[in-house]
Amino acid sequence: MSESIKPRLEVCMSPALLHLYDVKDSIVVIIDVLRATSTICTALYNGAVRVIPVADVAECVRIGQALGAITAGERDGKIADGLQYGNSPFEYPRNFVEGKTLVLTTTNGTKLLHMAKDAKQIITGSFPNLSAVCDYLVAQKQHVLLGCAAWKDRVNMEDTLFAGAVVNRIRDHFTVNCDSALLSESTYLAGKDDLFTFMQGATHFKRLSGFGLEDDIRYCLTPDGANVLPLLVNNELVAYHQ
Amino acid sequence: MSESIKPRLEVCMSPALLHLYDVKDSIVVIIDVLRATSTICTALYNGAVRVIPVADVAECVRIGQALGAITAGERDGKIADGLQYGNSPFEYPRNFVEGKTLVLTTTNGTKLLHMAKDAKQIITGSFPNLSAVCDYLVAQKQHVLLGCAAWKDRVNMEDTLFAGAVVNRIRDHFTVNCDSALLSESTYLAGKDDLFTFMQGATHFKRLSGFGLEDDIRYCLTPDGANVLPLLVNNELVAYHQ
Repeated sequence: MSESIKPRLEVCMSPALLHLYDVKDSIVVIIDVLRATSTICTALYNGAVRVIPVADVAECVRIGQALGAITAGERDGKIADGLQYGNSPFEYPRNFVEGKTLVLTTTNGTKLLHMAKDAKQIITGSFPNLSAVCDYLVAQKQHVLLGCAAWKDRVNMEDTLFAGAVVNRIRDHFTVNCDSALLSESTYLAGKDDLFTFMQGATHFKRLSGFGLEDDIRYCLTPDGANVLPLLVNNELVAYHQ
Repeated sequence: MSESIKPRLEVCMSPALLHLYDVKDSIVVIIDVLRATSTICTALYNGAVRVIPVADVAECVRIGQALGAITAGERDGKIADGLQYGNSPFEYPRNFVEGKTLVLTTTNGTKLLHMAKDAKQIITGSFPNLSAVCDYLVAQKQHVLLGCAAWKDRVNMEDTLFAGAVVNRIRDHFTVNCDSALLSESTYLAGKDDLFTFMQGATHFKRLSGFGLEDDIRYCLTPDGANVLPLLVNNELVAYHQ
């Protein structure tokens, strides 16, 4: 790509809009802030060898057994039948996850990841690895699509906020000709001084706080607690090392 | 509906997301700020008897001939072949449009209108009739879906800004459990002091200003210049009178 032309930076606010974007020539950042992509970077940051994202519980069990791996995933806020662990980043401290493989099934995040499989490259993003994502994207000098996992295809607040945080941080290195990017950024700027309070009207905040998960939400909205870059290689997310 | 339970207020940011919402029990507000719904309320405000929205140019010509009506519509920023007038609100002053029927074809707005045909009721909204829309919605005490026409299914800035303006104005009368509504409102609040300047990064601003349409944009972003309520009755938009 010519140095004089900056690569494109776009935001896709819902998987139901993904077909409107050209993923083939872009790095796609999968964003599922509450909580899949926050948990993925946390597990890798704490030494997990890899995280294998899978679409459903049966596949999670099958691969988990074949590899002797940790199986994890929730449905309706509870650990899914047949799996061992849930979606909380706090379940994956170093003394548990180091050196291990985690097989994870989530609904929205995994769905988007599979939909974007033709992308030039796939990474995952969330506030705990905000800086790692931004630094990587700036260094690659490629088109970028920030893909929000959303909630059952409905646009959600937390993924949009993260997309906005990335846009705000790296926009000078890119051409931004995408209203979703501008909307995300303006919402992030409105909320950035206290994301936790800003999130309290959001649907997912109400859903998770009903399960007593305020600490999870707070962690998932805090930048750079697990600053590693999960990169999809052969359908496995591994920590990228330069 | 019980007086103790407030009706629902939601925002659908793109026609490609409309299937996620239950339109049957809602008043749907069709929003196509640049420029279809701004032009519709302007024509009715200036005395047009009705505006008939149609899907394509051929239908526009056919109905226009049958009714002896004004035919209007643009494709790629120019008056479409076979039609008489364009999409600019300034083409429909009182001394031209009063007492007449306008048959209008637009791409995004008309598409959404037809998609939402099962709604309990359909009205159209834009900044020139902001107060009329808000007053009507508050008075009806029904569920409301603010439907953004967007641009070829991509979320756009101007329709989101108008949705946010409505949310901000009437939210106390409704239950707002919709992140798209919160995002729209926060973006509107960020831009409201100078919507014209705020819009200058948006894709449609660049597209229209390339055609020298800054005056159109300025009018379409100014509240209450044509404060009438277009209501769809038998596939025709007519001014609602209490």
